[in-house]
Amino acid sequence: MAANVAKRVLVVAGVGNGSGTGAATARLFAKNGYSVALIARGADSLTKISDEINSAGGQATPFPLKSYSHEDIAATWAAIKQHFPKPEYEIRAAVWNAGQGVWKPFLEITPEEVQLSLDTGVAAAFAFARQSILSFKENEIDSTNGKRGALIFTGATASVRGNVVTSAFSAAKHGARALSQSLAKEFGKDSIHVSHAIIDGGILTDRSKERRDPSWINNDNLRLRPESIAESYLYLVNQDNSSWTWELDLRPAHEKW
Amino acid sequence: MAANVAKRVLVVAGVGNGSGTGAATARLFAKNGYSVALIARGADSLTKISDEINSAGGQATPFPLKSYSHEDIAATWAAIKQHFPKPEYEIRAAVWNAGQGVWKPFLEITPEEVQLSLDTGVAAAFAFARQSILSFKENEIDSTNGKRGALIFTGATASVRGNVVTSAFSAAKHGARALSQSLAKEFGKDSIHVSHAIIDGGILTDRSKERRDPSWINNDNLRLRPESIAESYLYLVNQDNSSWTWELDLRPAHEKW
Amino acid sequence: MAANVAKRVLVVAGVGNGSGTGAATARLFAKNGYSVALIARGADSLTKISDEINSAGGQATPFPLKSYSHEDIAATWAAIKQHFPKPEYEIRAAVWNAGQGVWKPFLEITPEEVQLSLDTGVAAAFAFARQSILSFKENEIDSTNGKRGALIFTGATASVRGNVVTSAFSAAKHGARALSQSLAKEFGKDSIHVSHAIIDGGILTDRSKERRDPSWINNDNLRLRPESIAESYLYLVNQDNSSWTWELDLRPAHEKW
Amino acid sequence: MAANVAKRVLVVAGVGNGSGTGAATARLFAKNGYSVALIARGADSLTKISDEINSAGGQATPFPLKSYSHEDIAATWAAIKQHFPKPEYEIRAAVWNAGQGVWKPFLEITPEEVQLSLDTGVAAAFAFARQSILSFKENEIDSTNGKRGALIFTGATASVRGNVVTSAFSAAKHGARALSQSLAKEFGKDSIHVSHAIIDGGILTDRSKERRDPSWINNDNLRLRPESIAESYLYLVNQDNSSWTWELDLRPAHEKW
Repeated sequence: MAANVAKRVLVVAGVGNGSGTGAATARLFAKNGYSVALIARGADSLTKISDEINSAGGQATPFPLKSYSHEDIAATWAAIKQHFPKPEYEIRAAVWNAGQGVWKPFLEITPEEVQLSLDTGVAAAFAFARQSILSFKENEIDSTNGKRGALIFTGATASVRGNVVTSAFSAAKHGARALSQSLAKEFGKDSIHVSHAIIDGGILTDRSKERRDPSWINNDNLRLRPESIAESYLYLVNQDNSSWTWELDLRPAHEKW
Repeated sequence: MAANVAKRVLVVAGVGNGSGTGAATARLFAKNGYSVALIARGADSLTKISDEINSAGGQATPFPLKSYSHEDIAATWAAIKQHFPKPEYEIRAAVWNAGQGVWKPFLEITPEEVQLSLDTGVAAAFAFARQSILSFKENEIDSTNGKRGALIFTGATASVRGNVVTSAFSAAKHGARALSQSLAKEFGKDSIHVSHAIIDGGILTDRSKERRDPSWINNDNLRLRPESIAESYLYLVNQDNSSWTWELDLRPAHEKW
Repeated sequence: MAANVAKRVLVVAGVGNGSGTGAATARLFAKNGYSVALIARGADSLTKISDEINSAGGQATPFPLKSYSHEDIAATWAAIKQHFPKPEYEIRAAVWNAGQGVWKPFLEITPEEVQLSLDTGVAAAFAFARQSILSFKENEIDSTNGKRGALIFTGATASVRGNVVTSAFSAAKHGARALSQSLAKEFGKDSIHVSHAIIDGGILTDRSKERRDPSWINNDNLRLRPESIAESYLYLVNQDNSSWTWELDLRPAHEKW
Repeated sequence: MAANVAKRVLVVAGVGNGSGTGAATARLFAKNGYSVALIARGADSLTKISDEINSAGGQATPFPLKSYSHEDIAATWAAIKQHFPKPEYEIRAAVWNAGQGVWKPFLEITPEEVQLSLDTGVAAAFAFARQSILSFKENEIDSTNGKRGALIFTGATASVRGNVVTSAFSAAKHGARALSQSLAKEFGKDSIHVSHAIIDGGILTDRSKERRDPSWINNDNLRLRPESIAESYLYLVNQDNSSWTWELDLRPAHEKW
């Protein structure tokens, strides 16, 4: 193992408007010395989050995406690699936090919505994982944690349980979870660490704040803070190769489950 | 509940060359009084199986499919309903046995293969399930088993476990399993029974016979007979509404698992 | 494989007052040609059920048990073997349906109640399984289903999910499920079939009838009929060795899960 | 929430000879400001580990146990509470790492070995959990992590999968896992955090070193370091109440699973 002198890069996909898990992960990793490549479809909010991280002394670059197609994802990774070239930089961590959910009674779901769920939730995850694994394979093993890189998938309750109104969403989330487990088994022996986090509760984001009342918004026992999820992702990335985790669940203290 | 006087129809998708689970299910249900609608992409083998069932005193009709797209599946069901019209006939059972698997190291899988897996393994399952549920909803509750209809998904080891070389296959199979669970929960209260069978071992088909030696082919302890799987499907369809099964596993006696 | 000419015997433990799963299983197997050995702690109801089966043309014998200790279970099996001796009889099926549950908030459960749960739910299951396996090992493989014998464990929701007020009960049920899986894997290769049925809902028994109102009691969609559970047990025992089931779930059609 | 001024205490049961998970956890928590109460049956090694922690500037006290009976565990906790009295001290973390495993073909396991497995692996876990919960309930909520206390169970592969030769061990481990899940659900709303860690691989201890060759002993990719497991326990205890974990798995990078 060689001591890692290159600057570590995190690639995070699915940054939304900056109030959720993806953005919190970007901020936390930036504070912990990572350069951050931000991927999402909205260029505006990407730039905003990127600026914010850079103002705070971190290093972030926005990589807006036209679509979550295999081609666009591959092109985006090519741009990231060009922007953060070896040997100065090394992509050491990747977080897949994207995917568009559909929650509807089964008979109201259109074929297009099924397709969208599978495209953004599974096929795009395959494309993102492919680029992550290929990038990690170019790295030496990091002497601090014994790995070439770490890839984390953000899962949900629907990743492990289908339910009324979640058929399309849970099909996609189950698919991504299966991918994560297959990768964990296939690439563990290459010292690439793949994890899956089951977020089993509501997350405090701008969107959920709009729909919820203050008793929920202000009570840490009732919903997940994106910053806490990000802490778990940093912990996973830092786990050493003797004892690493494929899957953990995360939920608020008072969640009924 | 009305006594069921209409002729029961089974729709089975994924009949292959006639040596596997789909065809065995068709034969067994035909022997048990069902008219059978056979769906697959190869018209030739469909006709062969259909003829064989009809010669044996059963009633079967082939419905060859151009593709497993939502549109083609919907069109095929429309043809089936026209061929087996109410009130003479009632579609009471459906078996989803289709889907094209890809077994390859992750980095060798192309985006097209991922797409094919998801299209035939998940999106097509959604389309088939939609037609099944819509058909069942037109039925009265059958007085013999307390249900409007029964839909069975054929699963695999990969439905519950991702593994090396199964990333694309297991993503699709996990997705279909999630769908089946969501449907079971959503439509149980409408007296529609949805099940998922985990086939955890090799099945004796023409294809597996070509690759295996006689010690495997001739030993019931080592591989599943399609006829036995079909028996379990008939049992599931016959379970009454007080005690029905969402999921069961099936494997040969000597399987290591 | 030899054609089975001996009379098949079912041993069923946990027969209660005769209104539940154990007794329904005994009745159904008796109707299907099995001699039945009934095990429970209450001699009175055992005799009643036994008489009832014998009056209906079946063959049943009560084996009242002092306790579910290893010694008493072993002694009871010795008595059963003496009563149903080879080669005239062969013990071919066994159903473990016993165990005393405790449902209480954790802090209200006494050490004695924990012990009772583990003694009757796990240790006794080990003792019963031991006798079952030893008996089956004396049998030739049955030509009708390719097995030496079949052992079924009655499980519950708590077998796969711990919950508020079920700590002691679910610990015992998880333990018995683990035992069943270990046995299925260890003895499958000896052609001994071990299964586990997850009963995921309320069962219609004399006891549940006392606590429930007619809308529940009279609606097959809301609770399990013991006779339907028994049907699933007979199906499991009859599954052939090419395709047998370790685990299935059973629940009423309208159950929320 | 009150700022925590009392000295935090960790109680850890199952410290063995000092080379495994329990002792590593004690050392790590001591370095992180916890006073440590060490529970095990061997007084000699307990004193050794305790002395070692104290020499390194930590604070540890040995509490040797006569047996893992409910009474002895309760008496030990009473002694711990007397030794670390409120308000100067507060028991804030507890790790259950005890239990005696039996790995044998099913028919070779004696009733006494089944009993030993259940007594030390389940009944004792109930007694330890009871004392932990009762102690935590006396605490105010800690302002740093939003909880009254954290209880961690050390699990194993056998906690989620029965297998050949693990019937007794997996029955006990499944039982303890069910307990942990029940407690997590029941006491989360009281701000008590209960977790379960599935250790899915061999741990580097004095005992495993004796049986293994240097290629295994010296390769972090092949077995778990107790110190890494301890890191995960510290992480779990520090997780805040918005996002905490019930279960995670831990395995070496190159483990086949």
